Amino acid sequence: MRLRNKPWAKEFMEAHPDVLIQEEEGIQQDWHSVFGNENPIHIEVGTGKGQFIIGMALANPNINYIGIEHFDNVIVSALEKAIEADKPSNLRLLRGNGAHLKELFKKGEVDRVYLNFSDPWPKSRHAKRRLTHESFLKRYESILGERGEIHFKTDNRKLFEYSIVSMSAYGMVFHDISLDLHAQMPEDNIMTEYEEKFSAKGQPIYRMEAAFK
Amino acid sequence: MRLRNKPWAKEFMEAHPDVLIQEEEGIQQDWHSVFGNENPIHIEVGTGKGQFIIGMALANPNINYIGIEHFDNVIVSALEKAIEADKPSNLRLLRGNGAHLKELFKKGEVDRVYLNFSDPWPKSRHAKRRLTHESFLKRYESILGERGEIHFKTDNRKLFEYSIVSMSAYGMVFHDISLDLHAQMPEDNIMTEYEEKFSAKGQPIYRMEAAFK
Repeated sequence: MRLRNKPWAKEFMEAHPDVLIQEEEGIQQDWHSVFGNENPIHIEVGTGKGQFIIGMALANPNINYIGIEHFDNVIVSALEKAIEADKPSNLRLLRGNGAHLKELFKKGEVDRVYLNFSDPWPKSRHAKRRLTHESFLKRYESILGERGEIHFKTDNRKLFEYSIVSMSAYGMVFHDISLDLHAQMPEDNIMTEYEEKFSAKGQPIYRMEAAFK
Repeated sequence: MRLRNKPWAKEFMEAHPDVLIQEEEGIQQDWHSVFGNENPIHIEVGTGKGQFIIGMALANPNINYIGIEHFDNVIVSALEKAIEADKPSNLRLLRGNGAHLKELFKKGEVDRVYLNFSDPWPKSRHAKRRLTHESFLKRYESILGERGEIHFKTDNRKLFEYSIVSMSAYGMVFHDISLDLHAQMPEDNIMTEYEEKFSAKGQPIYRMEAAFK
């Protein structure tokens, strides 16, 4: 997405430490203590403007949600939404880098990883940056608990094709696959900003649930 | 497909034993001896009217092809096409039941299994009849050699979704996935009768290459 420069972003983020955590601080955290309970922890890598993770937090109060986003100018939109939603106690936004997941979470601390409309990085030489590249799968495997799953949605056909092959080669198993999510919309589907936009154009939305056996 | 009764089918099939083999006879065969060479053997389970397997046989003279079809009234159309094509020496049609693959082929005798536009059997209680059900995967695993693959094409989204989950649960690995084959048509793609019909309607064709590790 186009990144507008928002000179007020840094100050705005610092004013809401009860919702938004900076990466450096995140590395020190025991996440169950942050939430003050032992509920499952679901994270979204690349949370963007936050519509999905905030919708999930409101819909599922007994699950803790952490939305991770690298870009200040994007995560502030999620922060604005979280404030409008009265800062759900089961939601945190983490401004940090998805490549640092192993530093941000303990082994097995996470119960589910959401990837939604991730950057497809279409050029082969950028394959390593795709969030379903082997290097990222290793990170998810490390932080996910025994019955942990990855739930992944995208409108990008080539990224989805690549992801099935990459995850399969890694030894992952697919528990559920939908090649046109909106053809039979699950009642509990929470749409991301991208999902609303692309599905309105009639493009199929692809979705999977996968696990490390 | 609608099955027309063709009273002449039996006699017609019996008149061309050099191309069409009946199941009972197939069970006795050493397939490399049938072809008189040690070239790889690729089979199609549910060969229908034969356009795919005959096209493949003409395009790849160094591979032996066997098209298996259960219904007399369908396989006679394939036989007609094979005769029109001057009976390629690397082609056989086998009138038999896909459930009997382990009786029809020796362990590891086959190098590739093609499944094209197989019956989706949409009702859950018929799942066992789908050609990517565990019971069929066991049969393919038994007759396929070490580097053997299944190549599967369909226009049926639900069958393809089911197949990824079923094959993944069985421990199979996906080497290639296409969720819109005709968006970037491979030069060597040979279309089946169904494929021509459905892709002309603009429906995506799904395709995979998968192996038993």
